[in-house]
Amino acid sequence: MASTQSAYLKDLYASWASRMAAQPEMDLDTLRDLFEEWHLPTVEPTGVSYEEVDAGGVPAMWCIPEGSAADRVLIWCHGGGYVVGSRHTHRKVAGHLARAAGARALVIDYRLAPEHPHPAPNEDAVAVYRWLRSRGVEAGHIATTGDSAGGGLCTSMVLKLRDDGDELPAAVMPLSPWYDMEAKGATLDSRAGTDVLVQREILLGMAGMFLGTGSATDALANPLYADPTGLPPMFVQVGDHETLLDDSNRFVDKARAAGVDVTLEVVPEMQHVFHFLAGRAPEADEAIARLGAWVRPKLGLS
Amino acid sequence: MASTQSAYLKDLYASWASRMAAQPEMDLDTLRDLFEEWHLPTVEPTGVSYEEVDAGGVPAMWCIPEGSAADRVLIWCHGGGYVVGSRHTHRKVAGHLARAAGARALVIDYRLAPEHPHPAPNEDAVAVYRWLRSRGVEAGHIATTGDSAGGGLCTSMVLKLRDDGDELPAAVMPLSPWYDMEAKGATLDSRAGTDVLVQREILLGMAGMFLGTGSATDALANPLYADPTGLPPMFVQVGDHETLLDDSNRFVDKARAAGVDVTLEVVPEMQHVFHFLAGRAPEADEAIARLGAWVRPKLGLS
Repeated sequence: MASTQSAYLKDLYASWASRMAAQPEMDLDTLRDLFEEWHLPTVEPTGVSYEEVDAGGVPAMWCIPEGSAADRVLIWCHGGGYVVGSRHTHRKVAGHLARAAGARALVIDYRLAPEHPHPAPNEDAVAVYRWLRSRGVEAGHIATTGDSAGGGLCTSMVLKLRDDGDELPAAVMPLSPWYDMEAKGATLDSRAGTDVLVQREILLGMAGMFLGTGSATDALANPLYADPTGLPPMFVQVGDHETLLDDSNRFVDKARAAGVDVTLEVVPEMQHVFHFLAGRAPEADEAIARLGAWVRPKLGLS
Repeated sequence: MASTQSAYLKDLYASWASRMAAQPEMDLDTLRDLFEEWHLPTVEPTGVSYEEVDAGGVPAMWCIPEGSAADRVLIWCHGGGYVVGSRHTHRKVAGHLARAAGARALVIDYRLAPEHPHPAPNEDAVAVYRWLRSRGVEAGHIATTGDSAGGGLCTSMVLKLRDDGDELPAAVMPLSPWYDMEAKGATLDSRAGTDVLVQREILLGMAGMFLGTGSATDALANPLYADPTGLPPMFVQVGDHETLLDDSNRFVDKARAAGVDVTLEVVPEMQHVFHFLAGRAPEADEAIARLGAWVRPKLGLS
């Protein structure tokens, strides 16, 4: 049974759904403010400090756990449908994962849609990776991660790096990733009654802003259409109450068929990006501990 | 002339004023979300970590600069008209001041109006102070500070402590304090053209929520009606472009007449709580450096 503490996220999402339903014409500024509440479920990680940085033209936030390796980096692509969210909403959860991994996290403020549709987010994430490399960080000392749309982005950025012949990062950790720009997953219906926030309508609205005039089957916008061959080891975590569960299932099946080393965890009864409950609910803390333990050796840490 | 960087706060306030004007019936949730943007002008202070704490029943946030004295505390009462704002909006600016002071800051989430009118905020702030004392922190090692409504509260909490016979903190640092629940200051008119956010209407709206059925001349709700005799040394900072400038002027005059040791700084061309520009604009960094240098010896720090 889901922990009592995990209800915090579900209740927050329910309040958002209710407010969005009450204001169907909610303007973008208000919607962005609403999603800035996303940081609330996450309890401040202790022993972590922060530093804003211009990461090769992309505003970003270092999350620096005490005693962490300065040359091991988790690039965190934040969620929010490529439309909302920021380095501020995700600073704390990234700090928790960084602490678990013994590394620093770098939360990036890639450009958002609709002002900046695809491929702007992908370009920015790739630029951050190359900026880190240019500063002497080894490819094998970098992992990419992210949640929701950022789960898609932390994947698509590595697809682009592979296409371009860059040396690849050590690992990819998509959390409740959103890949499907066509909203075709079976769990969009089968989990519609358990997922209190993510429904087909909001997904298609955000997909429209993200794609702009582009195609929903562009492999870098929708990695379900990509060839995953050659991707680094991946660890995908998703909640079993999520409508987006099938985004993970389908991508993982395809990646495994292409020979990628993929670990998939479906955590019972959890909502979209339950990792936001870090410091509050055991499901999030335990999931983050598993991610940290998995990625440490991949980054060359003991 | 005001720094180029300081325009960030003015532009943010102008955007809020514009959005509030466009939605005169803006609901409280939306208004609170809007004011959560208050953290944006403040650049993350480096070398500061955070820890959430239950401070005697009041949710609070420790801001812990590396190498700071663990037993010297600045209690920070956040601004927002007693209606909006939080420990999250003020974490960063409090971290900057804590670093300058060589102490920890404790940003407190006192109960907000209209759900909890006066004297709830005062009761909570006093409870936090007594909780610190009960944990062994000496009165002389505590200073109170806060901005806007929190500038009022960091003052009124000490008035209450004095009335109750508690040993008093070492210092009080109100920043752009809001004292006047009747909106009688002359600068409400003379600075109406330069202050891009704070106007009589919004003040009276928030005063109404804060006072509930109480009186606008209650000395703990409106310290302009209090006898300041016996207050600790005070350092008040305020911007010269603020409609609330006269709140500082009038309180300072009264406190000096009562024999309180008061330093007042009116910083040219600055908006309401320009300290939010810490890490971004020199006016804020220099003001915070002066506060830190002033309060250190009062807390027994070199």
